[in-house]
Amino acid sequence: MSPRKPVLRGGIDLGGTKIQAVVVDGKWNVLGQKRRPTPTEGHPRDVAEEMADALREAALDAGTRPSALAGAGVGSPGDVNEVTGTVSGARNLPGWEGTFKLGSWLTKSLGTPVAVGNDVRVASEAEARLGIGRRYKSLLGVFWGTGVGGGVILNGESWLGRGTAGEIGHMVVRRNGARCTCGRRGCMEAYAGRAAMELKARREHARGVKTDLFKLMEKHGHDRLTSGIWERALNANDALATKLIDRAVAALGAGIASAVNLLDVEAVIIGGGLGVRLGEPYVKRIREAMAPHLFKDDHPPALHVAALGDLGGAIGAALLSADRDKVARKRARSHSGQRSSIAAAASRASE
Amino acid sequence: MSPRKPVLRGGIDLGGTKIQAVVVDGKWNVLGQKRRPTPTEGHPRDVAEEMADALREAALDAGTRPSALAGAGVGSPGDVNEVTGTVSGARNLPGWEGTFKLGSWLTKSLGTPVAVGNDVRVASEAEARLGIGRRYKSLLGVFWGTGVGGGVILNGESWLGRGTAGEIGHMVVRRNGARCTCGRRGCMEAYAGRAAMELKARREHARGVKTDLFKLMEKHGHDRLTSGIWERALNANDALATKLIDRAVAALGAGIASAVNLLDVEAVIIGGGLGVRLGEPYVKRIREAMAPHLFKDDHPPALHVAALGDLGGAIGAALLSADRDKVARKRARSHSGQRSSIAAAASRASE
Repeated sequence: MSPRKPVLRGGIDLGGTKIQAVVVDGKWNVLGQKRRPTPTEGHPRDVAEEMADALREAALDAGTRPSALAGAGVGSPGDVNEVTGTVSGARNLPGWEGTFKLGSWLTKSLGTPVAVGNDVRVASEAEARLGIGRRYKSLLGVFWGTGVGGGVILNGESWLGRGTAGEIGHMVVRRNGARCTCGRRGCMEAYAGRAAMELKARREHARGVKTDLFKLMEKHGHDRLTSGIWERALNANDALATKLIDRAVAALGAGIASAVNLLDVEAVIIGGGLGVRLGEPYVKRIREAMAPHLFKDDHPPALHVAALGDLGGAIGAALLSADRDKVARKRARSHSGQRSSIAAAASRASE
Repeated sequence: MSPRKPVLRGGIDLGGTKIQAVVVDGKWNVLGQKRRPTPTEGHPRDVAEEMADALREAALDAGTRPSALAGAGVGSPGDVNEVTGTVSGARNLPGWEGTFKLGSWLTKSLGTPVAVGNDVRVASEAEARLGIGRRYKSLLGVFWGTGVGGGVILNGESWLGRGTAGEIGHMVVRRNGARCTCGRRGCMEAYAGRAAMELKARREHARGVKTDLFKLMEKHGHDRLTSGIWERALNANDALATKLIDRAVAALGAGIASAVNLLDVEAVIIGGGLGVRLGEPYVKRIREAMAPHLFKDDHPPALHVAALGDLGGAIGAALLSADRDKVARKRARSHSGQRSSIAAAASRASE
């Protein structure tokens, strides 16, 4: 008998700035990966085509092709229907105000079944089950990037509420405070989200405040302030960048402490583009910013950088695909079980 | 055969202002009740004596006596150890900085087993299982009184975290904001807790701001601004009372909306002295204050006044006593089950 072929799966993390695809083996080792920029113009179909291409290249990198995968998953922003695989109103993606059947489009294009889940939820589950969260039963995943997303894991499982739990970025840290990109006021994301920080930096720059942020952006061929640009500006002691990041850290401290006061979780895991890029020194600063707001300040939760780093979202998407198969197999077994007991009963009856 | 005697239980809600005792039957109907003011001076033992007396009078009101009860429960503020029945650091109670064995003291004094639980948790469970919350699987109980307490019910059960979840009053609604009675800044309770509101009213009054709050307080023989005094002042259109209650409502709106953004629960139940006293019109105002901060504003949670009103905490304490007995019976059954299977195995072996 020939050795059993390893089961490979694909995962795609769809972000506002980048598309990250991976191919993993049954032990979640990353065998291939590819990153592509998210299209800033066009329609959902254009985004889906980039996603399919990214997974094709990740598969090539792993020495395989999408149709040979056991399945693939997607972590998507916007309003995700996990049953139908559709995504609606993804406001950071081009032309995605309506609804697009992302799951079925990718399934057809890639020739392997594609499951779609919420980006923050799949990334939180990946950290909870495969990353630094394995040692905890309750945790908050805080994804500090374009926005600030949150994943709530309680008793080892995602808490989804009525479907949209985890909007930690829209917890209010300052009533009547700064305008958020969501249109509301005083949200944590209005201070800490990279999109909100960039808007603020552009306004300050326009009214004459000195900063090298935009010079660095152009020098590195970007048209947005990526996490890498913020990091460079901080390292160069750019005053505006430092001020805005300090403000973000203070907001994260208050908002995350509020969530901990409500849920008393064991751990908080900081991921996302900025969280992973700025890493441990900034996790330490967030911990310090939380301290004055923690009700049980003698018993703070553990704070960690996401162990799966930049790939957590894509690995989480592959995990979703595997979970979906497990559920399907269970259902099939219980159906075939039913069928065989019906058959047995019929055969007894006819004896 | 004589009709089986109904199982009666006692419940005591220990508040910063009042002690509420009830005696209930097996269907949670209140057969007797008694309210006494919480001592403002003395030691934990003085408070415990008042509690015991309150339950004795509630039992009398129900035509029974404590030692004839199947058991009793207590909902207590402070740091409650539900296993040992001890209460530590109850900062709104006199001389209660240390630890007092409240459960065993009351058990001895009353002649019936007394279980002790966290006040907000037992009140939330009472609303979730017997009150308006019966129709929901996930809810937030918000107890608006001396402080602002919170109970988190998920999948029909209390979420306790590492033991101290639910501190909704200490979620931050304004970073660097008002000083809270807990010593921190910008907590929801710093704006909405009755103790914080009274401090603010006294300061404003001292610096010449006109208000009838303290005249009303003296007229009704109180030395604190009770919920009833606030209500009277609001009804008389007292400007300072109106301003401070408006501020409280705005803070509750932002804080509760933040909690809903994180947990996406089906319902929020507003209880506590002020919540129950001010009732439906103010629940409507809190709903309006939440609206601009809700991330899913097209799908807000249901908002209700606590259906069990002022007695919810005491009924919840009786419920705790019943739950404790159920657990004990289950354990006893499983032990006797083990013993009988050991006996059966021994008997088989000796055959």
